[in-house]
Amino acid sequence: MRIDIATLFPDVCETYLSQSIVGRARAKGTFELYCHQIRDWAFDKHHRVDDTPYSERQGMLLMAEPIYRCFLEVKGERKPHVIYMSPKGKTLTQKRCVELSKLEDIFILCGHYEGVDQRVLDKIVDEEISIGDYVLTGGELPAMVLVDSVVRMLEGTLSQPDCYEDESHFNGLLEYPQYTRPEVWEGERVPEILLSGHHANIMKWRRMKSLEETYLKRPELLKTAELDDADRAVLSEITARYEENPKFFGGE
Amino acid sequence: MRIDIATLFPDVCETYLSQSIVGRARAKGTFELYCHQIRDWAFDKHHRVDDTPYSERQGMLLMAEPIYRCFLEVKGERKPHVIYMSPKGKTLTQKRCVELSKLEDIFILCGHYEGVDQRVLDKIVDEEISIGDYVLTGGELPAMVLVDSVVRMLEGTLSQPDCYEDESHFNGLLEYPQYTRPEVWEGERVPEILLSGHHANIMKWRRMKSLEETYLKRPELLKTAELDDADRAVLSEITARYEENPKFFGGE
Repeated sequence: MRIDIATLFPDVCETYLSQSIVGRARAKGTFELYCHQIRDWAFDKHHRVDDTPYSERQGMLLMAEPIYRCFLEVKGERKPHVIYMSPKGKTLTQKRCVELSKLEDIFILCGHYEGVDQRVLDKIVDEEISIGDYVLTGGELPAMVLVDSVVRMLEGTLSQPDCYEDESHFNGLLEYPQYTRPEVWEGERVPEILLSGHHANIMKWRRMKSLEETYLKRPELLKTAELDDADRAVLSEITARYEENPKFFGGE
Repeated sequence: MRIDIATLFPDVCETYLSQSIVGRARAKGTFELYCHQIRDWAFDKHHRVDDTPYSERQGMLLMAEPIYRCFLEVKGERKPHVIYMSPKGKTLTQKRCVELSKLEDIFILCGHYEGVDQRVLDKIVDEEISIGDYVLTGGELPAMVLVDSVVRMLEGTLSQPDCYEDESHFNGLLEYPQYTRPEVWEGERVPEILLSGHHANIMKWRRMKSLEETYLKRPELLKTAELDDADRAVLSEITARYEENPKFFGGE
């Protein structure tokens, strides 16, 4: 997979995307990433890339031409899938991350300040993606979120592919709580079952905890999660116990 | 406002949060931000902060003690609102960003790898926040998203406070399209109305476009947006026109 990012802040994207798991995947060639400074395609000697919006009292808008020039030169003969990070886009989900991880060639455009001249968006963008319903300064954080979540799904990024299978949202549920050494910390013990070595019981406990966490924190996810009969039985128990005594789960 | 971030990647957070609008607000003292390396509070000579989860075949978990030591020393006598960035948290919204911008003191904990020992979360965390339903490598990007979106709401961050009032999600609708010079680019003209200088008509056009964008791209937002009678009349027109001829709006 090849990913290009066009932005006014390529260094910010480089810094994040060169570290940790994503950085290691990039270093070993699991994917290629290039961050481009839109300003390099400005057409005046001051490298100006923005101007005031028509009929607006304030703010600055990225002009169409430098973005378009950058896009044309970077893509060359290729036909990348062009994504504009925008609060007007479809909200990103784990399902969409998995789909995008199957593409070969992605070009991500980051807006900044008040946004981008609509005409260049109409001309080059295939898909607008939002990472959530809040306002940010630019598309850089959303682009990094997209790259991080997509690259994690590529073969070779995680040391063991099943690393992600229990994670929150991967199977539509929240993850069970986890514990590491020491066995007792500040008077709190690791749940006994995790020390038992009884694999099947531990698996059952984890699934129960996953259902419980989801029930308590994001109940709406239960509507779309894949549940079997055993899950549904456990859920009825949780519901009953919780309705009887909300304090039991630390609820209100 | 003071914000502390505890993370394994303080440089990444520093790099982003020192630039652009947020960086300028920080430089002029609109808010204070400190990024802390959790590793500095490790208790062995190798600065080890993670260990394998109990009864798990793979992955690493952040240990409770270094995080707890970091938290205690950083907070001192203060009582910060402690946020853990987690896919299990409540999904961030613009409304919550505005509420958080009214706090004086926020401590943000970033997990990494497989997560954090549950016991330290139970002990110090007031609120878990998720930025969306997808899996990321760590809490660093979510923390930067949170800081960016909250700091934008502080008085003094944006040069003119009404800069954000038209932005997508601020009033529950998506923003209207924007245009800057030149008047004609690649054969496409800026909409005539924006050149007319007729302020009231331009305002009307923008509201109509805002409603139209929301109707086409995120119709579910219309259920919760604040609409008046004029908006509702415009929306019926849009709906009628669109149902008559989907192509008119570039729909399917």
